[in-house]
Parts: sequence; C-alpha cells; structure tokens
Amino acid sequence: MAPELGIMIADTQSVGLVQPRTFTFAQDTPFPLESGAELGPITLAYETYGRLNAERSNALLIQHALSGGGHAAGYHTPDDAVPGWWDTCIGPGKAFDTNRFFVICSNVIGSCYGSTGPSSIDPATGRSYGLRFPVVTISDMVRAQVQLIDHLNIERLLAVAGGSMGGMQALEWAAHHPQRLRAALPIASTARHSPMLIAFSEVGRQAIYADPAWNGGDYYDQEHKPDAGLAVARMVGHITYLSEQSMQQKFGRRLRGREKYGYEFQTEFEIENYLKYNGNKFTQRFDANSYLYVTKALDYFDLASQHGSLPAAFAAATAIKFLVVSFTSDWLYPSHHSKELVSALTGAGCDATYLDIESSWGHDAFLLEVDTMTDLIGGFLNRLAENEGVRCPDAS
Amino acid sequence: MAPELGIMIADTQSVGLVQPRTFTFAQDTPFPLESGAELGPITLAYETYGRLNAERSNALLIQHALSGGGHAAGYHTPDDAVPGWWDTCIGPGKAFDTNRFFVICSNVIGSCYGSTGPSSIDPATGRSYGLRFPVVTISDMVRAQVQLIDHLNIERLLAVAGGSMGGMQALEWAAHHPQRLRAALPIASTARHSPMLIAFSEVGRQAIYADPAWNGGDYYDQEHKPDAGLAVARMVGHITYLSEQSMQQKFGRRLRGREKYGYEFQTEFEIENYLKYNGNKFTQRFDANSYLYVTKALDYFDLASQHGSLPAAFAAATAIKFLVVSFTSDWLYPSHHSKELVSALTGAGCDATYLDIESSWGHDAFLLEVDTMTDLIGGFLNRLAENEGVRCPDAS
Repeated sequence: MAPELGIMIADTQSVGLVQPRTFTFAQDTPFPLESGAELGPITLAYETYGRLNAERSNALLIQHALSGGGHAAGYHTPDDAVPGWWDTCIGPGKAFDTNRFFVICSNVIGSCYGSTGPSSIDPATGRSYGLRFPVVTISDMVRAQVQLIDHLNIERLLAVAGGSMGGMQALEWAAHHPQRLRAALPIASTARHSPMLIAFSEVGRQAIYADPAWNGGDYYDQEHKPDAGLAVARMVGHITYLSEQSMQQKFGRRLRGREKYGYEFQTEFEIENYLKYNGNKFTQRFDANSYLYVTKALDYFDLASQHGSLPAAFAAATAIKFLVVSFTSDWLYPSHHSKELVSALTGAGCDATYLDIESSWGHDAFLLEVDTMTDLIGGFLNRLAENEGVRCPDAS
Repeated sequence: MAPELGIMIADTQSVGLVQPRTFTFAQDTPFPLESGAELGPITLAYETYGRLNAERSNALLIQHALSGGGHAAGYHTPDDAVPGWWDTCIGPGKAFDTNRFFVICSNVIGSCYGSTGPSSIDPATGRSYGLRFPVVTISDMVRAQVQLIDHLNIERLLAVAGGSMGGMQALEWAAHHPQRLRAALPIASTARHSPMLIAFSEVGRQAIYADPAWNGGDYYDQEHKPDAGLAVARMVGHITYLSEQSMQQKFGRRLRGREKYGYEFQTEFEIENYLKYNGNKFTQRFDANSYLYVTKALDYFDLASQHGSLPAAFAAATAIKFLVVSFTSDWLYPSHHSKELVSALTGAGCDATYLDIESSWGHDAFLLEVDTMTDLIGGFLNRLAENEGVRCPDAS
C-alpha cells in the first residue's frame, strides 16, 4: 500500500504532506460573542498550502461546511488513506491553484477538529465545556478568522470561498469585513437559512437529544457517547446532500449481498447500507455536541434580517467581486437562494457573476463537479489576480 | 365547545356520526403472505359511509397512507375534536360523494388502528407479536382487503382511490385484481418506491431502533415505549410531507414566543415547535413497531420489477380507467413518478387521465387541495358512474 500512496503524494497535482497548525488568541481578554457571552482562550486549527508572495496579496481563505475541518488538502502522513476534504479543488493547477495562490483553511470555533468547541477543556473548571460552551454564530466564526488573518499579517485576502456553510462565511466576510477581501465565492449556499434547513437541523439535534447517552451534553467522561443519536442525525444529513436522481444512479433499488427480499428488519437495500455505514463512520470522527453548536450557528444565519434587507447587507461590499455558484439538483440549498442573492448583490451595486451548474449530484455537487468548478473558479481567480496585479510567489 | 361541534356534525357536508367496524378472517386456515409466512386470524378495522345501491355497484374503496386508519370521515362521538383523516373529501357533495357512492375505508394489516399488527396479541403465545409479527407487503394488505370486499358481497368496486401509500394499493388492486374494480385513482403516489423514499423510511426505522426503550420490539409490557425514537421518525416524515415553499409560507423564520434569538438549545423557531409538537403527538396515537412494518411494506413496493416492466404490470388492467394525480411541489413522490406511470399505463393500452396539480403544499397537497380535488375526482367519478350505468342508492 505504501508505494501506491507514495505515488499518490508524488502526484504533481497534490499539495503533498501538510502540517496542521494552531493559532490561539483571547488568552488575556476574552473574545466577545454575538450572543453577548465571552469566550477565551480560543484556538483555531488551520492549514496553509502554497506560498505567500512578497506583497502578501495572493491569499485565499477556504471555508469548510458543517462537518469539515481545517484539513482541506494533502496528507498528514504518507499512510493517510484519504486526503483533505477539498483536495480535488486545492493544489497545483487545480481550481484553487497553489502554484499561484497561498491557500488558508481554518476550522471554525464550535467544531471538533482542533478548534475550541464544546469538547474542549473549559479552563475555569478543568472539564469539557459540554453545553456550558457558549452558542456561537457565523459572525463569531468569521470574526475569529479575522484574528487569524491578522496573525498571518495579511491585510487583504484575495478571495474567501466555500461551499454550503463555507459559502455563508464567505458572505459574512463580504458583508461585515469588506475591506479585508477582494472577492467572495459562495457556492451551493444561501444568505438566509430557510425554515426547511432549520427543520433538518432540528431533526438532527432531536435525534441527539433523544439518545440517553447524550446526558445533557455531559458524556465526555462517560463510557458511552451519544453515537446512536449522532448516527441518525448524520443519516438524515446524507439524504439531504444527495438528490433523488443521484440516489437512483448510485443505488437504485439494488439489494446488498442478496438476490431476494429477506422480509426481515435487516439492511437489505444498498441505500440502507450506505446510510448506516456513513452514520456509524461519522460517530468516529465527529462530536455530537459540536453537531448541535454548528447546526445552531447555521440556523441563526440571516443577513437580510440583520440589515433590514439583503441588498442593505452588501451596501459596504461594492468593491468586492462575487462568484455565486449553485447546482440544479441541490434541493437543500436550491438555486433560487443563489438567484435571490445575486439579485440583492446587483441591487447593492456589487459585481456578481452567477452560474447555476447543471448537475444531478444534489448538494454534494460542490464536492463532485470538479472539472466544471476547476474551469469556473480557476478562470475567475486568474482574471481577478491579473486585474489586481497579484504576482505569483515565484515571480515575487 | 359542544355547540360548535354540534354545528360541525350538523354540517350538511359531513357524514356525521360513524361506527367503526371489524371483519375477521383466516381463523381456521391461516392467510398466506407474500413472504411465504402465514398469518391468522386477521382482523381488519373499517368504516363505511353512504349506502350501497341495489345492484351493489356504487362502492368506492378508499385507501389510507402510512399513518392513517379506517376512520376516514365523520365523527365517532359528538365530542370528537377532529373528524376522519379525509373528511374534506368524503361526504355529501364532496369529491367522494356519499349521496351517490358507498364509501369503504379499511385499515391495513400491520397498522395499529384496530387491524391485526405487531401490537396485536399472538394467539400462539398470548403476548403481543412484536417483531414476531410477519413482514407484510402492499400485496398482502390488498389481498386482505379483497377478503373484506368478498365479505361485503361486492363483486366489483366502482373505484379504488388513495394518496401516497393509498395510491400504491390502488395500483396493486388494478395490477393484480383487475376484475374487481372499474377505476383506480392513485394520487401523489408511485408504482415503485424510489431509493430516496427507502432512505427516508430507513432513517425513521433507525431512529426507532436507536431508542433503548424499543428493546427489539418488545415494549408492550414495559413502562416506557420508544416514544423518543418514534417522535424523531415522525419529525423526519413531517419535513418530507411539506415543501420548502410551504414551510416558508407557514413558518418562515418566525420565532415562537420571543422576539430575539435566545442563543440556547431550546425551541426557538416556529418550525422547530411544529416538528416537536407533531413528533410528540404522534407517539400518543401510533405504534413504533407498526411504523417499522408499514414503512417496510412501502419499501418493497415495485410493480415493474415484479412483472419485468411497468407496462407489463398493467397488461390485465386494460378495462380499468385510471385517474392519476400528482402535485408540482411534491418532492417525496415527485410528478415524474406519476408521469412514468401514465406512460406505462398508456403503453399497456389502459385509459389514463393525468393531472399534475399546481400546488405549493408538497406531498400534503393531496390532503389540502380540496377544491381542485373535488372538481377533478368528483367529475371523474360522476362520468364513470354515468358511463357504467351506476345508479344512486336513492334511485335504486
């Protein structure tokens, strides 16, 4: 297996071996949150790929979705079976081209991939926060990232990009920190979490609450974690990331390991197996309380209500170029959300390019439509860099 | 409150007070199921509305959906707060006009509204069946109803109609008992449960399995039932019965009983309250094991694979008139399923009328688009009765 992985990492389109990094702030003065609560110290786990040019002007900030983390590309060790979550789009010659750009990806606060969240130790008690962790919002996540970008000594990001929750963060950057970026790329995302999105969040949370092992969020010292509840939450999520068509293409009504119905309550259909496998696998890598906190942050997101209207939210963002992308079969973050966003951006006087990509993959398309994304995003970023006179790190 | 209810029942469009009935068969010889297992005795709970004409030719069989029962119209007592589940469509002058037709609605086997199901007492053990109840299919449900129709001494039903799972039963009647009906009305339904439908079924089942109180299906003698798991299953279901648009119309992002976000894990949004309320309410009226059995029956349903192709399934049904109805915003049983069905019916040489009704209510539209349904179904049944020379009970 080692030689194969060696080849994989030797792949000229991979960023290769990467180093997880952390940045800690708010040690002395706690960080004020949107809720009015305070939090500190705060650690953000992040990674970077590619090199910063001499002008520090070629940085891209990549934002992850609900269950993602700061490990977006490459491998931590030569034995890693899978690369970072957006490896198909981050690397030499890829959509986010590390030959040209310095790519940063940071885990959000509230998550469980090395950043401060409900599973972290509360310095005040010496125990995990659990539900004593304050509720955080997309605004809090982004303001924490602003601290990271300050720490990296980058005055202005060339672009902030992300899919799903990552797209919301890109919009939050544009709306509330417009001097800090030249472009925003919200992909398969929305400026306002719809009641349907809230409903799916809430069902996931209710599945976790219903698990006796959840124990009000205090399970870190216990024998059992609320794995059963978290697995159900994840299964619901997985359905929403696909489309009816992609499920038909991937699974159809195929049975798993049998030719006839068993007439029993076992896993019989391939789609059942897929959900169960992914639900269980998720419990090995994600924290149930983080699932509660991150979905709650999603549900609160509504740029329009904060500003009275959606165009008003982008009144200070007229210098920012937007690339808005949606996918035709994404029924979780449907195209009309992106169209409403583009209409608001145009109304606010922003420069917005929009593409509704024909795809059968549902919401997951932003991770799967690699060729189209490479052309679209790659072209957009190259033009942007050219217009802004951003030099490659080699040429600097 | 009593006078208001009195007025409601005095409503000339209500069937008024109705009597639940039961029919028991397979006492001596057990009933063979599709799985190869046998079951007996079997009780079906049913109700009838209107009167049979002298020729016994004006009978309509109404089929219920996943969580419905035989109580489709009217009230059991003058104090009932709500009428039967399809009261808006069954009554004098309604879509299924009880002035003209004799309407029968029967609960399916496997359910928990008076018919034999997993909560029934197994005569072999004197205890509830639990998971020892055999898995049943749509074919089994319908073959049990054939026994009921025989018992009622009705040779040929004028029509079999139903929404969702009820529509599948209507199609099963047409495909496998074509001599016993003149028309079939599958509404918001499908001839084949898609992998997405199986996925939602399975998530509901997994939520029940995950509840420790489920106890492998043996909870009838215990203090606690798997209410938490069943509530989560129902919440998932409720999301799928609505549409993004109807959720926006009904709930939007409105908060419940507060003006600002609470930044805590309480019910904050109206949509959360709706799901939680309906999830909990469901546990008071439905049995978790029945939820497993009935969803399993849905998942097995696939007329095409049973016959090699969908047109082949209806080869013997060419004398039957079909009225196929779908709703534009129903993403659970999307219109293209009905279109595929109509294409197969036409290919098989059947007479099929199809309407894709413009509606924002999602799958629930078949319960809500009353005016359109009244015109459409009422007109279809009146023409059918006229063509077949079916007389009103008064005139017979």
